[in-house]
Amino acid sequence: MLTAIDLDRLIADTEQEMLGLIERHEDERTRELYTMVRYHMGLDSDAPRGKRMRPLIGLLAYQSIAGDHSRALPGAAAVEMGHNFSLVHDDIEDNGTERRHRPALWTVWGKAQAINTGDALFTLSRMALHRLEEEGFEASRILRLMRLYDQTCLDLCEGQFMDIWTSEHDEWMSVDYYFDMIGRKTAALIAGSAEAGAVLATDDESVITAYRRFGWALGLAFQLNDDVLGIWGDEAQTGKQTSDISTRKKTLPLIYALAEATGQDGRRLQAILAQSEREPTPEEVTEVLSILDRVGAQEYTRDRAREHRDEALAQLESVGTVDQASMERLADVVRGVISA
Amino acid sequence: MLTAIDLDRLIADTEQEMLGLIERHEDERTRELYTMVRYHMGLDSDAPRGKRMRPLIGLLAYQSIAGDHSRALPGAAAVEMGHNFSLVHDDIEDNGTERRHRPALWTVWGKAQAINTGDALFTLSRMALHRLEEEGFEASRILRLMRLYDQTCLDLCEGQFMDIWTSEHDEWMSVDYYFDMIGRKTAALIAGSAEAGAVLATDDESVITAYRRFGWALGLAFQLNDDVLGIWGDEAQTGKQTSDISTRKKTLPLIYALAEATGQDGRRLQAILAQSEREPTPEEVTEVLSILDRVGAQEYTRDRAREHRDEALAQLESVGTVDQASMERLADVVRGVISA
Repeated sequence: MLTAIDLDRLIADTEQEMLGLIERHEDERTRELYTMVRYHMGLDSDAPRGKRMRPLIGLLAYQSIAGDHSRALPGAAAVEMGHNFSLVHDDIEDNGTERRHRPALWTVWGKAQAINTGDALFTLSRMALHRLEEEGFEASRILRLMRLYDQTCLDLCEGQFMDIWTSEHDEWMSVDYYFDMIGRKTAALIAGSAEAGAVLATDDESVITAYRRFGWALGLAFQLNDDVLGIWGDEAQTGKQTSDISTRKKTLPLIYALAEATGQDGRRLQAILAQSEREPTPEEVTEVLSILDRVGAQEYTRDRAREHRDEALAQLESVGTVDQASMERLADVVRGVISA
Repeated sequence: MLTAIDLDRLIADTEQEMLGLIERHEDERTRELYTMVRYHMGLDSDAPRGKRMRPLIGLLAYQSIAGDHSRALPGAAAVEMGHNFSLVHDDIEDNGTERRHRPALWTVWGKAQAINTGDALFTLSRMALHRLEEEGFEASRILRLMRLYDQTCLDLCEGQFMDIWTSEHDEWMSVDYYFDMIGRKTAALIAGSAEAGAVLATDDESVITAYRRFGWALGLAFQLNDDVLGIWGDEAQTGKQTSDISTRKKTLPLIYALAEATGQDGRRLQAILAQSEREPTPEEVTEVLSILDRVGAQEYTRDRAREHRDEALAQLESVGTVDQASMERLADVVRGVISA
């Protein structure tokens, strides 16, 4: 069995791959640019970092087929840097001042440098992929991976567009629109990570498809689980002090409730969520919680999350593998995602 | 001979290539995102557009070797979209409210959408390159082109970092730093365009190198010519009402004068350019012009521009070509760049 220690090794190797890439480009006049990159990526000293979920999924997918992870490290670096480029820009777009318990990049270096550093990080994520040539992968396979990566990044931008659009127009979307949005914004990159691992390891299209579906389902489950925690999780779990109800964040429980609540409940919910001048009062938050309760919004969201989790596990089981230990670890990641 | 009409055809074909790419990705929920892309690119109706200098250089370079431009169109689309992604973000970073006589994208749709649209445009520029597979280019050649493109984009981000850095730290750079900065910020993409055209057309490394050097020299000449016009050009030529002296823009004539002026001239120049609270008065602008005159800053900048123009022409002449007409057109572009 792979242990938690093995996962730490995958993370450490991915970080080494990213640091190597940065060092190859840094020079005296651009040092501060790369300092910003390391800061945001949590690659400076003992900085807090992300969970590195996406590279882990990619490496485990590759390893589950090919038996060892090391040749896939450039892909893992690319997906983690791509994810982080989008966070640098998201924080500016959403006015987010904190990221992983640290001041967001733009609050330290200003918006101009932060926008440009995000662009540099995006470019670096692509350059990471070129090292796959050194690892001996054929040009046609690398090109296929780049096509997948580029399409995934476009999905990301489209999802972000949809998110900003509804928030700026103060529009509550349909459940269908919501799934489309989180598909592009969240599931696409996790699906892309899993698919990329498989593309590097095999030519079997049915296996590649299964890994993609696995990642997509996992991504949706991950987002829906976050939605549940954003309203019913405690602060220790989420690290956030305010409920998604106070911030009127458009997540599935509220979107579902707006569609389902009728009569007095429907009118009150709309009235409370429509006022954009001020936050809902604590009494209004309690009122919304009761309405969510009556329409079964928590149960509905949890059920959808569990469905997608089960779908992810089923996709994994459908694949015959050479490396059972990595497969078990992937399944652990899926089960870990649904903490709620 | 290729005529101006032929150049119009190259531009029209490039625009068709870009529009085709956009149409393949647009859907009902993302329409407005692609509307923003078309707006900024000047692809909506009879909008004013850029000179499309970079795709023209790439297509002419390709055509001068291969005899026809059409297979290189995906590369031309990529370089033009890449250039434009950087302009979308530059306008936000520099607080530029106008672009090609129209309101800058961010002033119409807001900064959040504009940052994200720049990211989408960056991604689309990469997706443009994937169509080279349809045109029958080998995977290894496309990969080489992508490596060139990614390195060029990183140069761009590094140059932009250096530019923002000196402007935020209110630091006047050395002449050497300035050439390094405009090399990364301006020459790299023009060099990359010319090199890309050659990479697609030939395996002869000496030809590829000559085209790269041609583009690099052209890029520097182009920027230095702009520097001259920014101070001594008339409004009809530059489309700008204010002189670069009023805005204290860090261009070569001022940087050179700061390094060269001595005694009273040196002290006055530093004093006038150091005050960041207000613009120089008309009297101070006149004083700076006299100092620039005394140190020969205009002549110095013009000479450097002409040197690079001549270097660009010499590189072109060093290449034996199959298509003399495209070669002449490239030389015309070079001569056209030095209007001053």
